This record gives sequence, C-alpha cells and structure tokens, in this order.
Amino acid sequence: MNRPLKRPLLSRFSPPQLIALSFALAIAVGSGLLLLPFAQQSGQRLDVLTAIFTATTALCVTGLKLIDPAQTLSVPGQLIMLLLIQLGGLGLITFGTVFALALRRRVNFSERMRLAQQVSAFDVGGVLGLIRKIFVYTLIIEGLGTVLLALRFVPQFGWGQGLYYSLVHAVSAFNNAGFSLLGNSLQAYRADPLVCLTMCALVILGGLGFLVQVNVVAHLLRRRSERLLVHSRLVLTTTVLLLLAGTLLIAALEWNNPATLGPLPLGEKLLNSFVSSVMPRTGGFSTLNTELLRPATLFLTIFLMFVGASPGGAGGGIKTSTLAVIAGSAWSMVRGQGEMVAFHRRIEESTVLRAMTVGLLASAVVGVMLLLMLAFNTTPRLDFSHLAFETVSAFSTVGLSMNTTPDTNAAQRVILIVLMYLGRIGPLTFALALGQRVKRQDVSYPPERDILIG
Amino acid sequence: MNRPLKRPLLSRFSPPQLIALSFALAIAVGSGLLLLPFAQQSGQRLDVLTAIFTATTALCVTGLKLIDPAQTLSVPGQLIMLLLIQLGGLGLITFGTVFALALRRRVNFSERMRLAQQVSAFDVGGVLGLIRKIFVYTLIIEGLGTVLLALRFVPQFGWGQGLYYSLVHAVSAFNNAGFSLLGNSLQAYRADPLVCLTMCALVILGGLGFLVQVNVVAHLLRRRSERLLVHSRLVLTTTVLLLLAGTLLIAALEWNNPATLGPLPLGEKLLNSFVSSVMPRTGGFSTLNTELLRPATLFLTIFLMFVGASPGGAGGGIKTSTLAVIAGSAWSMVRGQGEMVAFHRRIEESTVLRAMTVGLLASAVVGVMLLLMLAFNTTPRLDFSHLAFETVSAFSTVGLSMNTTPDTNAAQRVILIVLMYLGRIGPLTFALALGQRVKRQDVSYPPERDILIG
Ligand SMILES: [K+]
Ligand SMILES: [K+]
Repeated sequence: MNRPLKRPLLSRFSPPQLIALSFALAIAVGSGLLLLPFAQQSGQRLDVLTAIFTATTALCVTGLKLIDPAQTLSVPGQLIMLLLIQLGGLGLITFGTVFALALRRRVNFSERMRLAQQVSAFDVGGVLGLIRKIFVYTLIIEGLGTVLLALRFVPQFGWGQGLYYSLVHAVSAFNNAGFSLLGNSLQAYRADPLVCLTMCALVILGGLGFLVQVNVVAHLLRRRSERLLVHSRLVLTTTVLLLLAGTLLIAALEWNNPATLGPLPLGEKLLNSFVSSVMPRTGGFSTLNTELLRPATLFLTIFLMFVGASPGGAGGGIKTSTLAVIAGSAWSMVRGQGEMVAFHRRIEESTVLRAMTVGLLASAVVGVMLLLMLAFNTTPRLDFSHLAFETVSAFSTVGLSMNTTPDTNAAQRVILIVLMYLGRIGPLTFALALGQRVKRQDVSYPPERDILIG
Repeated sequence: MNRPLKRPLLSRFSPPQLIALSFALAIAVGSGLLLLPFAQQSGQRLDVLTAIFTATTALCVTGLKLIDPAQTLSVPGQLIMLLLIQLGGLGLITFGTVFALALRRRVNFSERMRLAQQVSAFDVGGVLGLIRKIFVYTLIIEGLGTVLLALRFVPQFGWGQGLYYSLVHAVSAFNNAGFSLLGNSLQAYRADPLVCLTMCALVILGGLGFLVQVNVVAHLLRRRSERLLVHSRLVLTTTVLLLLAGTLLIAALEWNNPATLGPLPLGEKLLNSFVSSVMPRTGGFSTLNTELLRPATLFLTIFLMFVGASPGGAGGGIKTSTLAVIAGSAWSMVRGQGEMVAFHRRIEESTVLRAMTVGLLASAVVGVMLLLMLAFNTTPRLDFSHLAFETVSAFSTVGLSMNTTPDTNAAQRVILIVLMYLGRIGPLTFALALGQRVKRQDVSYPPERDILIG
C-alpha cells in the first residue's frame, strides 16, 4: 500500500490470475527447453505437441506420459522434467499456503487468526519466511526419502545411478508427480515393502498440505498450547478413512484376480492393496497393471482419484476437506439437522456452499471433457472405461492410466493438456476467487422461495 | 386436528413414510397378482423375483424389463401392469402436487401463497378437489393421446387391438412408463411422425408437472392477473434448452453412424434425434437400438437420464429445476456474485443447498449402486458402460437399456429393484423431508470458518 510503484506489472493481476499465468508461462518455457536437442537422447525427436504434453504433465505433477523419459530424454532432459516437477509441486504448496493465510487474514480481520497463529508458533516472519520454511521442509522430507530409497537402489544400480534414481523418485513421489525412470512404474518392486512404503509415505506427506503438518507437529510437541485445528482433524480423519476403506475394498475386489493380486502371497496382497489405495490420491505410481484391474476396482479408483489429496499440498482432486464437508452436510440434512457439526464446531453454510460448488464444477468439467474425449475418439481399443479413467486421472493430476495415453489422437492430447492445466490451477484459484470476491448485487431482487426441488 | 380419532393409523406416519410405505405395499400386491396363473399366458411361469421386478418397474414407471409383456403376460396380466403404471404415475403427480402445496402453506404461513393462489384460480376446493382435477386432467390428456395414436394403430391392427394398443401406449407415455406391446419399443415407427410426436408430447406433458401446466394455462387465458411463476419459468426454460441441446448433440454425434441415423433420410434423422433427446427424460421409449449408439451419445444420454423430468410430474431423475438451481448458482459463484438471480428473483441459499444436496445424494446412490452392479457382475458381455447406463436408467426410472436387463444375474436384479424404488420415492420424499423438518441443534456450537476447500 505504501509503495504503489514497486510492482506495477504484477499488481495488475489478481492472485488467481497470477497462478494461472505463472503456470502457463512455465509450461511454455519447459516445452521450449525439452524441444532443444541436448534434452533428448540421440536419435529421438520430440514433436511440439508431445513436448507441451510432457512439460504440462511434469509441471502439473500429473504423470500421464506419451514418452518414457528414461528412453527418450537425455539426463539433462530428465533433470528439466525434475525441475518442472519440483517447481510445480513447490509452487502449489507455496501458493496454497500463502494464499490460505492471506485470505483468512483479509476475511476475518477482526478475529484472531488461529491458522496463522499456529504457523507463527514456528516464528514465521512474513511470507518470505514462510516460503523459506516450506523449502526447508520439502528438502528434508525429500532428503529422507532419497536416503531410504538409496538403501535399495544403490546396491542394485551402483552409487551414481542408484542415488540419481533415489533422488528422482523421492522428488517425484513427494510432489505427487508419478514419474518413474523404472519403466513400468513400481511394478518391479511390488514385493518390496521398503520401496513401496517409502513411496507411499512421501506421496501421503506431500498430499497432506503444509499447514496440517505444521499444526500436527506443534500439537505433538506442545500439547497444551497448540490445539489440533478442525481443518487438520477433518483432513486427517478423511485421509485415514479413505486409505483404510480403499485398501479393504481393493483387497476384497482383487483378491482372486489372476492378473493382479491373485498369485501374490498374503503379505504382498495387503501391501499392494494399500499401494493401490494410496496412489490414486494422487501420487500416480502403480505396482499392478491398472488396465487389468476389475471394472469395480477401476470405478472405485476413479472415485479415489476424483477426491484426491488435501488443500495446500502437491496433490490434485477436489480434496479431502471438500469431500468431508459435502458428505457431512448432506448427511446432516438427511437427518433433518440444520447445520453440519464436526468436532464440536458448526460448519457454516458459506463453506458448505463452496465445497458443493467445487464438487459440482469439477464434475461438470470432467463430464464435458469426457464427452469430448469420447466424441473425438478414433481408437477402437479405447472404450468408455479407458477414457473415463484417463479423463479423471488428468483432471485430478493423478497419472494412472489404463495404458490409454499413447493410443490417444492429437485432439484427445490437447483435451488432456487442458484437463491437466484446469485440474491443477482450477480448484485452488477457484476456491481463492470464491473466498475473495464478495461483490454485491447492485439491485436487490426480492427472494423467491417457491422452487420445487427433487 | 379436530378429529384425532378418525385416522389413528395413518397419522402415525409422516408424509415421506406414507409415500414409501404405499409404494412398497403396491409393489407387494402387484407382484402377488402377477404371480396368479390368470395373469400369465399359458405355458409361461413367472418366478418370484421376476414378478417383483415387473411390478416394481411398472409401479415406479421405469420400463426396464426382464420379460416382454406382450409375450409373457395375458391381457388381464397386461391390464394389471397398466393399472400399476397408472397408479404409480397418478400417485406421484398427486403426492408431489398436494405436498408441494401443503409444504408451502406450512413454511410460509404468514406470506401470501402465490403457488396456491394460482391453483385457486381454478377453484380448487381443498385437497380432494385438487386430486379430482388431477384425475380429470390425466384422463383428458391420455384420451387425446389415445385418439391420436388410434389414427395409426386402428387401421393397422383393427378396432379391438388397435384401440387397446393406443390406450396402453398413451397411458404408458403420459406416465413416463416406457412400456410398449410392440416388441422393440417404437423402433418400427421411427419413420412415423404421428406416433413419434404424439408419444413425445405425452411424455413431455406427463413429465412437466401439474402445477406448471395449470400456471401456464392460467397465464395464457388471463394474461393480466396470472403471472408465470419463477418455478414455471425455470422448469420451462430448462426443459426447452435440454430438449434443443440434446437434439442437436445427438444429431451431430449419430449423423453418420451406420447403425442408427446414418441410413435415414434428413427428416427422419431430425425426428429420431428429437425422440432420442425426449425419451431419456424419462419416457424410456426408443426408436433406435440404444446399444448401437456411439459412446459419446450414450454418455450424453446418461446425463439426460440423470437430470430427468420436472417436480410434481410422473418422470424421474434429479429434476430440471434442481439442475437449473445448481448450474445457476454455481455460475453466479464463479462470476463472484453472491446469490443466484433468476427472472429478477433471488434464489435463496436454503434452496441452493437443497438442490445441491439432492444432486450430490443422487450421485452418491448411483455411485455406490454402480460399484455393486460392477462387483456382482458375472456376464462378460456387460462392460462398464452397459452397467453405468443401466444403473442410471433404473435410478431415474427411465427404462432405456443397452439390452442389459435380461443378462443381469439375480443379485443385480435385486440392486435394480432397490434402485427403481429409491429413485422413485427418493427425490420426492427427500425434498419433502428437507423442507419440512427444521430441527434445531440442542447445543449451539461455535462456528468454524477455517476450512480450506479445493
Ligand atoms: K500425479
Ligand atoms: K420410464
């Protein structure tokens, strides 16, 4: 306010516009870099659409792929992808966290800002201090992940390649990017609890959101003074319930499927059920061949992908808190109670409306795009379930695929690029826009109650 | 209130419970009647599950069928089905209209009841007078439909069978029941505008709701004194837009499909596109082989089925007004405006919440039931799209099928029966329950604003 001339260009854009623009710019730069010869292995030649697709899937931490980065890209090219992944993931966590705090500060100016207080318990000195903390936290988690993965990869691949693979997979997992240099994602490691559980832990932490983790750590360290926020409780409860229910349902549905869990021993059955429950939300790695899952499991996976991770993290989807508010308020309406109560707090109608609108808009985007994917389809092998799965996977930036992506045509690839971009910036910027603008109608119209519903 | 002893049994139940009970009772009685030997053609033997399925599909005016009523049932058996259809349709229109008025009277006691006023312009003398008017109106429309259809069917089948067929199809169409005695629904009449358009008109009128039509007629007769209600405008606008968009999209998608519109001349292409746009909402007749539609058309049809008809009519689905309120309020939130405005009236937040909850609960029921349909499937021919189509068709009481129903197993048939029943009584009783109970929390919890969404 005191320095109106300092950032004349940036200040012309609203925060949602800034996010949209910065992601679009990064995709353009990333595609350009990937098109340079040094980024590709000799004998390979990326076309422009594939380069844009690859930059988008990296920056939007999706993981759908037209090319195998280990085969097509040189090591510098792979590092460009890794940088895009790290930028995309960090960008999301940072944007999400900073704007969540800024938003709250503006809306509830007169109130105590509990969320900000929690962060200030860690001596956050303004936005720059917060960003530095997010960076350090990211480096620590990714470092720990690299060390754990190196215990397996270094003996297997030697120091150089082993450490490189460990780093790539740790960064990819924490940012929920779903990229692997191992060919068939994690299928070669389905019997390896160390790799599977490390990757799951990284995906879960990266998808949980920074503020929730700060809140939990503060609560554990200083139980008296730091309460677990309602938001943290909602996110953690929903995450645990979805992981548990997903694991049990997938185990039940796939137990005897000869193409997936059937031939595995008991322990691996459970381990792979857990991995298959974690990864749709929205890590995108897989230990089983997705295409060979049973139709019911595929449908369940589509639902898990649509829900996705939690706000303020690197994952996609409509988010756990959105699902919790939608389900909780629908349930309290069915029971004839006016408002949803969670953990002894009323959830206000404006929050409920926002959650339901996010859920319905996401459904609308997925629906329209799926209609287009179906209408433009020219590959007979790709049926309804392939394209529905692919559409949700792109929108929620999951990256799982029923081996569909390479068989799509150019029109469908453009649609997937749009989906990844919308799915990445959509829920965040939309939630921001919803929370921010409180434009009032100029004319106050009389209310109308006599609308029959249902 | 003055005669507490007059209806001691009935008064123990709430209106939603009454609806649920009366439909369950009618299904039980109907199944029993269909199981009697005189209801079946000689040599046929209905099993219990098929009888319950058939009574449910008739009473819930769905139209999914395990048997061809023309082949399996005797004429008395067919008349039992027709009676169930007429009961189901009339029951819905009556329940819907009476409760809509009663509900409004209770909620806005101090206000002028505009909806009731409109009806009172027709000198409605209480509930019995209203019910009589609904009966007379139904008979007139069905009579007109019978006469129009007889112009085709009497020359073709002779007086006896021609009139019988005309009556059955007029009743079936007006009640959105989807039942036909012509073997392949209306496929033999796809080149016949008289039959096609008469059936479409009956389906549309039956699905529009009684109050809207009363309001429109009153408005047309006495333009000055009778305003078109916002509810009527919303329903009519949404209906026209959906019919138009559906016709155009289906024409575009199927134009060159050799199995559907491809070989037809221009006029028939358009006529059959229109019929294929009308019938998913939720008439259930077809002039094309549903299974041979393109995947994109099938997906569009699933959407049209899910939306369905309008409140207070014989059709199913979440209803046009629900879609309009959901879409309109989501759009006004995206544009940063606080409340949805339609036809110079604010739509209140409670109405928006109710509409979104109806849409989300319907999605949840369809989702859970589809998961079960997939998990219990034992027929390799039935893929994801077959079962998704069948599930929505049952829930929205549409009756269109990708020739799936006869190939379902017993478990799936039970699921379909539950879906038809829930889809039939669900939205109505749920909307009633939502509007009625305004139970307050005993303890007033403090509000919680810090929930991150999206
Ligand atoms: K991903
Ligand atoms: K029907």
